[in-house]
Amino acid sequence: MASTSSLSLSNSLLARSVSHHRPGLCLSAASPLPTFSGLKSASSSSPAQIPIAALRRRFLQRQIRAAAIETLAPAETSLVDNSVNTIRFLAVDAVENANSGHPGLPMGCAPMGHVLYDEFIKFNPKNPYWFNRDRFVLSAGHGCMLQYALLHLAGYDSCKLEDLKSFRQWGSKTPGHPENFETPGVEVTTGPLGQGIANAVGLALAEKHLAARFNKPDCEIVDHYTYCILGDGCQMEGVAHEACSLAGHWGLGKLIALYDDNHISIDGDTEIAFTEDVSKRFEALGWHVIWVKNGNNGYDEIRAAIKEAKSVKDKPTMIKITTTIGYGSPNKSNSYAVHGSALGAKEVDATRKFLGWPHEPFHVPDDVKKHWSRHIPEGASLESEWNEKFAAYEQKYKEEADVLKSIITGELPAGWEKALPTYAPDSPGDATRVLSQQNINNLADVLPAFVGGSADLASSNLSLMKKFGNFQKNTPEERNIRFGVREHGMGAICNGIARHCPGMIPYCATFFVFTDYMRAAIRISALSQSRVIYVMTHDSIGLGEDGPTHQPIEHLASFRAMPNVLMLRPADGNETSGAYRVAILNKKRPSVLALSRQKVPLIAGTSIEGVEKGGYIVSDNSSDNKPDVILMGTGTELELAVEAAHELRKEGKAVRVVSLVSWELFGEQSAEYKESVLPEDVTARVSIEAASTFGWERMVGSKGKAIGIDSFGASAPAPVLYKELGITAQAVIAAAKELC
Amino acid sequence: MASTSSLSLSNSLLARSVSHHRPGLCLSAASPLPTFSGLKSASSSSPAQIPIAALRRRFLQRQIRAAAIETLAPAETSLVDNSVNTIRFLAVDAVENANSGHPGLPMGCAPMGHVLYDEFIKFNPKNPYWFNRDRFVLSAGHGCMLQYALLHLAGYDSCKLEDLKSFRQWGSKTPGHPENFETPGVEVTTGPLGQGIANAVGLALAEKHLAARFNKPDCEIVDHYTYCILGDGCQMEGVAHEACSLAGHWGLGKLIALYDDNHISIDGDTEIAFTEDVSKRFEALGWHVIWVKNGNNGYDEIRAAIKEAKSVKDKPTMIKITTTIGYGSPNKSNSYAVHGSALGAKEVDATRKFLGWPHEPFHVPDDVKKHWSRHIPEGASLESEWNEKFAAYEQKYKEEADVLKSIITGELPAGWEKALPTYAPDSPGDATRVLSQQNINNLADVLPAFVGGSADLASSNLSLMKKFGNFQKNTPEERNIRFGVREHGMGAICNGIARHCPGMIPYCATFFVFTDYMRAAIRISALSQSRVIYVMTHDSIGLGEDGPTHQPIEHLASFRAMPNVLMLRPADGNETSGAYRVAILNKKRPSVLALSRQKVPLIAGTSIEGVEKGGYIVSDNSSDNKPDVILMGTGTELELAVEAAHELRKEGKAVRVVSLVSWELFGEQSAEYKESVLPEDVTARVSIEAASTFGWERMVGSKGKAIGIDSFGASAPAPVLYKELGITAQAVIAAAKELC
Repeated sequence: MASTSSLSLSNSLLARSVSHHRPGLCLSAASPLPTFSGLKSASSSSPAQIPIAALRRRFLQRQIRAAAIETLAPAETSLVDNSVNTIRFLAVDAVENANSGHPGLPMGCAPMGHVLYDEFIKFNPKNPYWFNRDRFVLSAGHGCMLQYALLHLAGYDSCKLEDLKSFRQWGSKTPGHPENFETPGVEVTTGPLGQGIANAVGLALAEKHLAARFNKPDCEIVDHYTYCILGDGCQMEGVAHEACSLAGHWGLGKLIALYDDNHISIDGDTEIAFTEDVSKRFEALGWHVIWVKNGNNGYDEIRAAIKEAKSVKDKPTMIKITTTIGYGSPNKSNSYAVHGSALGAKEVDATRKFLGWPHEPFHVPDDVKKHWSRHIPEGASLESEWNEKFAAYEQKYKEEADVLKSIITGELPAGWEKALPTYAPDSPGDATRVLSQQNINNLADVLPAFVGGSADLASSNLSLMKKFGNFQKNTPEERNIRFGVREHGMGAICNGIARHCPGMIPYCATFFVFTDYMRAAIRISALSQSRVIYVMTHDSIGLGEDGPTHQPIEHLASFRAMPNVLMLRPADGNETSGAYRVAILNKKRPSVLALSRQKVPLIAGTSIEGVEKGGYIVSDNSSDNKPDVILMGTGTELELAVEAAHELRKEGKAVRVVSLVSWELFGEQSAEYKESVLPEDVTARVSIEAASTFGWERMVGSKGKAIGIDSFGASAPAPVLYKELGITAQAVIAAAKELC
Repeated sequence: MASTSSLSLSNSLLARSVSHHRPGLCLSAASPLPTFSGLKSASSSSPAQIPIAALRRRFLQRQIRAAAIETLAPAETSLVDNSVNTIRFLAVDAVENANSGHPGLPMGCAPMGHVLYDEFIKFNPKNPYWFNRDRFVLSAGHGCMLQYALLHLAGYDSCKLEDLKSFRQWGSKTPGHPENFETPGVEVTTGPLGQGIANAVGLALAEKHLAARFNKPDCEIVDHYTYCILGDGCQMEGVAHEACSLAGHWGLGKLIALYDDNHISIDGDTEIAFTEDVSKRFEALGWHVIWVKNGNNGYDEIRAAIKEAKSVKDKPTMIKITTTIGYGSPNKSNSYAVHGSALGAKEVDATRKFLGWPHEPFHVPDDVKKHWSRHIPEGASLESEWNEKFAAYEQKYKEEADVLKSIITGELPAGWEKALPTYAPDSPGDATRVLSQQNINNLADVLPAFVGGSADLASSNLSLMKKFGNFQKNTPEERNIRFGVREHGMGAICNGIARHCPGMIPYCATFFVFTDYMRAAIRISALSQSRVIYVMTHDSIGLGEDGPTHQPIEHLASFRAMPNVLMLRPADGNETSGAYRVAILNKKRPSVLALSRQKVPLIAGTSIEGVEKGGYIVSDNSSDNKPDVILMGTGTELELAVEAAHELRKEGKAVRVVSLVSWELFGEQSAEYKESVLPEDVTARVSIEAASTFGWERMVGSKGKAIGIDSFGASAPAPVLYKELGITAQAVIAAAKELC
């Protein structure tokens, strides 16, 4: 692609500014920074009272302090400067207009944003979903106006001028943090810090995997980069560290992270809480590390660094780019004051003066418009060239092309459901984690991009696909992912995989209780409408001796409360297959499968179809929809309800047993159907579940009884725990007898 | 203290084995390890079929592979060897007896465990709560039999032989993972990986803080170390990374972490997922790093490393100790097979033969018993010497001694509650986060060890204590803790602070939605009965434009379902003060305070006393406990219930308004009290809360209506969101009219 570059920095400065990080260099280079001495606040002097020349001097002093380089006078106006300032002011103006938002990051990152989108990222603005586009993630999601401004300049229909003007307003396409489901061109949903870089790891993993499987010596049909901008906040988050450790381990050479090193977070200078040597850490994680010291104007250095990063094929690259948050704001730059609030009219005015920007709000100069306008035809060309390439590929490699196409479109192979195991009534029972393993392995046969793994519990979660090896640096074509003990990173990486293209279906596994470690990622799955399958075994006190640290109690309730999650707790083989069916078919929501460590029998009356309704009658000896009592259960406790029903029926009672495998799906059924399962008039209802009773009033009503566990568990063999904690058929019988 | 050491390694080997880590050294030294080639499994040959000499050869081969050192033949039997083998076999036998547990870590870590407890850790076994003891945390909690065996040898009453024999059984003091509330001598509850090392950071922070405040040039009254054993699993967890980054930043010189580098996790060789350079990473985090290459027999090296670590005062130390998991088991050592299952009778037999251990299960040789028996008198002496020191300190520094005593005992200062702000009915309203700030600052005046901070949101959470500075490396006497953007680490560190001694009262703050990042730590607060106060602001869609990534929906429900947590959502000033009162007084449970970003008025009828009951009548114009309708709300929506009641009363209805600020506390009230607030006969009930309706059936009953939000929020100004999502007084009025 053609590019116009600022020539404001000499080549010799360039050579010094783009430096490979060596141990010690970072610290000594950073030492000109004054010692930290407390929270800085924005100057209390009003810009109106100070001549602009003085402001400029003060600003330059700030700059030097922040970026530790010698020349910082705004460069002679050039096209790139104009473009960069356009980005800055689109962000400033949109935040001002909304009187809400985060101007600081876009102002500081505009240069890297410009260089990335204008010169490096492959995209087609008129088809944001073109498969072979480069992926871009703004991990520091609060700076979303950077992304919206770039999408605007690049010609995306989602970010027209009126969209920027309705930034952060009800119904707009430009919400307060990037949301893939609102804004075509945004790949993933970010904002909660650290998630985005982990998503980027997942996106890069997907690319590496698909490239390894589908590329041919004569045709690289899968070939794109994943770029990510992250900030100091992301760097501090454990989830980012987990994912970056894996990215280094996997050698994700096409992952390029741009670290906006601005030394400011909400609490002030990062010196107050973040003094680790980030570059050295990333080297320890197996990354290639580059430091661009002048991220404010150093277009050439940024460009050179990205080029170098692209050339490093065996390692991901972290480009630390030292910038000034709120660059251009004379009184607020380089302070937390510019992070998350509108600048205010006066400071906007001062910033306009400082940056030599005489334009009205939301102005895009003609030369900038013209310059960027080439991306529409260029993007169309990129896609059509790739389409031609794909046509050639298809001719030569029909079978692979068909599979790849199905991954690109997400269309499920005809008849895939037949792979789900079914169980005759006389089948032997087993732990639902074992039955889950059968599903996973059968699905591995029919779903071409079903990939996943466990956070170091594969042998307990039973989550390995036996016919495949491990996805590793040198075996990226394989489909078992080894996440190590990194639950949070695992979830966030799976979100990235799921968002790569519609046919990628990631699953991930750990003990159910450890969803606590990854809950922020699961919530992003739900919010971003990403089909991640969470295979969560050891789902109750039934795990026994490991004790209360390992025994989930409140987790079922906690996910039933979370929007857009399917919480599934199958009772036996047929329900486990049903759970997988539902999980695969629900393309726009994640599923959490709670699975048992311990064996359960196959229960007469369970079915895949039943699971699809979420709640259904498993057995019944009543008539006219008027049982004496309804017994309900989920998972391993459905058996206890069945056993209790058996006893009660012996005593002449009309007893209905209902499985409530997924409350969400049951809630979505028609009123008639719900009434046919839980008739309003039948108030004698007993539920049993080895978990918190919280929420069960919805099912048992005010007169019913919920049997569960409202304290932590304990360390003992599972049968002892069930007895001691009162999760027994006898308890169900006793409760039922009190009610009918 | 006297010590007996194995002399099996020459001094020259010692010199090589205790080496300071330098960049590159770790990798090159590790290179003798064969390239990873997939999951290893235990040998399928039965030990019975193979002569013991061959087993020994095979074992030695495994050893060399794992530890990369030259001589590993079991040393000549010595007292230390005997002690170490006693620890190994107490673990092996207890796991065997329970047929459940984790023998691998205790077998590999017995040497470091022995050296630590026998030679370094200061403790008094007959008073596990002696204030100035060294703290020990087993972060790799699954290896708890190591700790129980050590506590047994050391003379703790919690781990008598019968306790070891009832390992992992119902009602025993030796649960499947270490639990401070079950086993005196265990400092914190571990098992969920990474938590323990973060707790250790909190413990070490508390020591550094108290030492800085109370030590005098002539009297170091607070002076102890924090030791922690962590494994590969802990090292992979993001929470550990977050906490260790802070430990380096804070220069916690008296924190000494022993990293059991055994290269095995549940999924096999760590090569499959964990190839980062851990030592280099810890150097980047500002730690002192030492590598002990022979952790299996190298007592001298371990000892030398700990001594060195103790001498490094300005940095925490990570001692990487290379060990063999399951050391001594001929067929299972150095494989995941020995991690989490009983060895089985045959392998136990082979292990006994290999290690030359002819004894019966649970045998403690007399010389070992005798050697360890000195810890009872020595421990008593340590404590009484310290008591004498304290008496002298008290004479000289009466005021400080009194304060320190109150921190040690946890006794609250008389009249502390008077510091809680109260509000007259005509007081102006404010955001509950602002009212929270008043509470925090008032409590800072009266509670001597009230410490805390925010995960980089201090200016949003309003969590700073204005009269104090920042706890930092060189200002550890200060009380504001700057956690950076590390929610999970923050929570786990606060657990450590809370467990240091009864008077340490930590609070920590972030946005409510980001409890998702730290949920695993909050659960440990609850389980371990630790009074941590979670100050969670921006508690609903009321935060406005930041959008759904930042708007909690399901979080209230998710904590109401979690055992032993107080979930408090105050509505105004009086309720906020009540929430703090309750949080401080509940010494054995954490409190989560959900606080608003937006302003709320002071509501007539709210009270601190009301909060203590969890639910109470705020206003009522009914008589005989028979209102026409009961309106309920929490937090910022109580105002809407009040407004609706006002309108309904104008129309002649008898309306009761109930605040349900804490469901847990309300649930603990007498049946009579509950009936007086929510009479069973009154089924016309409407609730309003800007959150998931999940669980509200408990309060509104089958006939009532719950107004809430069962989808994600959106990005828009708060008033727009309330209107668009139907959280309005009008909605309450309409629902009430349908019911009465």
